[in-house]
Amino acid sequence: MKTILLTGFEPFNQETINPAWETVRALDGWSEDGFRVVARQLPCVFGEANEAMAQAVAELHPAVVIAVGQAGGRCDLSVERVAINVDDAPIRDNRQQQLVDEAIVPGGPAAYFSTLPIKAIVGALREAGLPASVSQTAGTFVCNHVFYGLMHAAAKGRRAMRAGFIHIPYLPQQAAAHPGAASMALADMIEGLRIAVRTTLATVADVRVQGGAMQ
Amino acid sequence: MKTILLTGFEPFNQETINPAWETVRALDGWSEDGFRVVARQLPCVFGEANEAMAQAVAELHPAVVIAVGQAGGRCDLSVERVAINVDDAPIRDNRQQQLVDEAIVPGGPAAYFSTLPIKAIVGALREAGLPASVSQTAGTFVCNHVFYGLMHAAAKGRRAMRAGFIHIPYLPQQAAAHPGAASMALADMIEGLRIAVRTTLATVADVRVQGGAMQ
Amino acid sequence: MKTILLTGFEPFNQETINPAWETVRALDGWSEDGFRVVARQLPCVFGEANEAMAQAVAELHPAVVIAVGQAGGRCDLSVERVAINVDDAPIRDNRQQQLVDEAIVPGGPAAYFSTLPIKAIVGALREAGLPASVSQTAGTFVCNHVFYGLMHAAAKGRRAMRAGFIHIPYLPQQAAAHPGAASMALADMIEGLRIAVRTTLATVADVRVQGGAMQ
Amino acid sequence: MKTILLTGFEPFNQETINPAWETVRALDGWSEDGFRVVARQLPCVFGEANEAMAQAVAELHPAVVIAVGQAGGRCDLSVERVAINVDDAPIRDNRQQQLVDEAIVPGGPAAYFSTLPIKAIVGALREAGLPASVSQTAGTFVCNHVFYGLMHAAAKGRRAMRAGFIHIPYLPQQAAAHPGAASMALADMIEGLRIAVRTTLATVADVRVQGGAMQ
Repeated sequence: MKTILLTGFEPFNQETINPAWETVRALDGWSEDGFRVVARQLPCVFGEANEAMAQAVAELHPAVVIAVGQAGGRCDLSVERVAINVDDAPIRDNRQQQLVDEAIVPGGPAAYFSTLPIKAIVGALREAGLPASVSQTAGTFVCNHVFYGLMHAAAKGRRAMRAGFIHIPYLPQQAAAHPGAASMALADMIEGLRIAVRTTLATVADVRVQGGAMQ
Repeated sequence: MKTILLTGFEPFNQETINPAWETVRALDGWSEDGFRVVARQLPCVFGEANEAMAQAVAELHPAVVIAVGQAGGRCDLSVERVAINVDDAPIRDNRQQQLVDEAIVPGGPAAYFSTLPIKAIVGALREAGLPASVSQTAGTFVCNHVFYGLMHAAAKGRRAMRAGFIHIPYLPQQAAAHPGAASMALADMIEGLRIAVRTTLATVADVRVQGGAMQ
Repeated sequence: MKTILLTGFEPFNQETINPAWETVRALDGWSEDGFRVVARQLPCVFGEANEAMAQAVAELHPAVVIAVGQAGGRCDLSVERVAINVDDAPIRDNRQQQLVDEAIVPGGPAAYFSTLPIKAIVGALREAGLPASVSQTAGTFVCNHVFYGLMHAAAKGRRAMRAGFIHIPYLPQQAAAHPGAASMALADMIEGLRIAVRTTLATVADVRVQGGAMQ
Repeated sequence: MKTILLTGFEPFNQETINPAWETVRALDGWSEDGFRVVARQLPCVFGEANEAMAQAVAELHPAVVIAVGQAGGRCDLSVERVAINVDDAPIRDNRQQQLVDEAIVPGGPAAYFSTLPIKAIVGALREAGLPASVSQTAGTFVCNHVFYGLMHAAAKGRRAMRAGFIHIPYLPQQAAAHPGAASMALADMIEGLRIAVRTTLATVADVRVQGGAMQ
C-alpha cells in the first residue's frame, strides 16, 4: 500500500481559510487501487513549514508528495514546473518573518524540477473539464520555499519519492472579498487533486506536449 | 403569483454550451413566496433575440425579467448597470451577421439603466460568498442588444416590469479550453441567480453603496 | 479660425502629476490650418469640474472640445464612446466628496454618445503607430462626470460643438510607482492628441469599422 | 577598458521589428568611464542563438553581458532572476523548430541565477522614472534558452563575466496592432538599458530589497 502525502497550508495574508488545506483535508484517508492518502497541514512560516514537511515524510515514507498552495488571483489549477533556491517575501509570514534574498538551502542547487508528470496531469485535468496549466514559477514566498525544500529532500533521500507542487485559486467565498480575482469551487479543486494523484500513479514517464510560456 | 422570466442564450462563438442557458434552465419552474420562474432560451442573433424576448414578455407578463449572458473571461457575476443603443459586433452572430455602429432602436434613447436593485444584488451575492460586482458596460454585442431591447420594452410597455442583465463567467469545462480565463461552477451560478431573484423581489429601492469604477 | 478646446485634470488620487494636463498643456496655442488650440485645466472635483468646463466653453465658443483624463492601468489611448448620467465614485475627489449613485443632470438622458469620429481617430492613431482603442465605458468618477456634462452642454447649446473624451495611460514615471501598470511616453500622448484633433477636423461622418466589445 | 556586450534578437512571431534589437543597437559603441558597449543581434533560433552568443563572448571577452528580449504584453523593464534548463516552446522559432521539454544543456544544473545586481537595477530604473520589476520567470522559449546558455557559459568560463537577461515590452508601433498590450517608447528602453549598464558596473554586491512574488 503506497502512501500519498498531500499537504496544504494554514490560512495566511489575512484570510480565514486556505483553499489548499480545505482541498487536501477532504482527501485525507482516501484509499483506492493500492494507495492511501494522508493529508497534513503546514504552517505558513518559513523554516517551520519545511520542518513539518520533513517530519511528515520521515513518519509516512510517502511514494508521492503533492504540496498544495493558494495562489490568490490565479484562475486555474497550476501545476508547478520548478522550485528555485531563494526566499524573497512580498509580505510577512505567519511568524512575522519577511525573508529577502535568502537561500532556502545554502549551497543547494539553484532549482529543482518537479518529478510529477506535470504535462500528463494538466492534460487529464483539462480532459475532465477542469481549467489547468503548467506554471513556470511558484513565486518566492512560502509556497516555493516548501516546494524547494521538498524537492531537495526527495533528491537527497534514500527512498524514491516523487514530488511536486500545485497552486490553486481562491475559493469563491474568498474572491467575494477580492473583486477582480478568479476562484474555483471547492468540489472542483478536490476532484482536480484526485485526478492529479491518479495521473501521477498511472504515469511513469511524462507525456511530451507543449506547456511552456513565451516569457 | 408573479412570473419571473429568466433568459439565457444558445451557445455562440464556437462554444458547444452556454453557461447562461444552463443556469436559467435549472431554475425553470422554481416557485417560492408568491413567484414562479420561467426560463427561456434566446438565439444569439441580432434582431431575432429581441423578437424572442418580446414574445416571451407578451405571453408571460413577467413582473421581473433578468436576462443572463456569458462573459467569457470575466471572473464573477457581473450585474450590469446600463444598456447602450448601439450594436458594434467584434464577431459574427449565429446568423453570420456582424452589425457595426447600428442603433438597436433608431431614435431611441442613448441608454437605459437597469431597473434591478443592482447594488443590493451584488451585496447579497457577496454576503453569500459568491464573487460579484457591478459592471459599467455590457459590451456592444448581442448581450447588450437584448439588454437594451428589454429595457426599451419595459420603458414603453403598459405594465410595470423590472428588468436587467447579469453577465456570468465561463463554466469550468469551457475555461479548460481557454487557458488564462476564469470560470465559475454551475451550482454557484444557479445559486447566484436564485439570490438575484429573491433580492430583486425583496428590494423596493436599491441600497446606496459604492459600485462604480474609476474609468 | 476655429477654436479647439482641450482640457486635462489636475492631479488626483495621491499622484503629483496628471498625464492629461501634461499632454494638453503642451498643445496650448498650437495653431494650424484654420484652427487654434486652447488648453485648460479642470479641478478633479464633482460639480466644480463641470462649472470650469462651462466657463471655458462660454468664453471660447470652441468648435471642438476634447476632454482628456488619466486612466491609470489602461495601456492605450482610449477613445470613449459613451457618457452615462451617474456619479458613483470609488474614491473621494479632490474636495473629499464621494458621490454614490447621483444623477449628473437630474432628469437628463441616461447617456450621450461622443460626437467625435471615434473610429476614425482610433484608426489614425494606430496608423501612426500609437496604441489606441474605442472604450465602451468612461467609468463613473469625475472623468465620466465631465464627459457627460460636456455632452449635455453640447446637446443643449445653441452653437454646434463636437465633443468627446479620451482616456490616456499613466506616464512612465507614475507607472514606476505602480508595478504592473502600463504607461505611455508623454511625447506619444501629445502626438496622439494632435492626431485626434486633426482627424476630428478632417472627418465629417465617422468611418464604419468595428470597435466594439463582446461584453 | 571593459567591454559590455548587449544582445538583442531578430524579429520573431510575425513581427517585423524587435524592440530588443532596436534598443541595444542604439547603444552600440557607447563608451564611458572605462567601458565600451558592443551590441550584437542573435537569431531567434534554438541552438543557433547560443552559438552566436558563444562566438561573441569568445571574440569580445566582455566583463558584462546583458541579453535583452521582447516580452510582448509585459508593461515594464523586467529584470530576470533565474534561467531554467528546459526548452518548451509555445510557438515555432525562426527555423520552424518547436522544442518541447528538452534540456538546454543535458546534465546541466536545473537553473542559474542572474549575476547582475537585479535589485539595484530595478531600484535605479524606478528612481529614474522608468517602470521596472524583478521577474521570476523568463519563460521557456528562446529568451530563456539564451539566458540559460549564457549563464552556463559564465559559470564554466575561465574569465569572470557577470551576466543576465532583461525582458522589455512591445514598442508602441507593435502594440498598435495588439489591442490590450502594453508598450514602452524606444527612447525609454534605451535609457533603461543605459541605467542597467551603469548600475551593474557601479554595484559590487546587490542591495537586499524585496523583489519577489507571492506565487
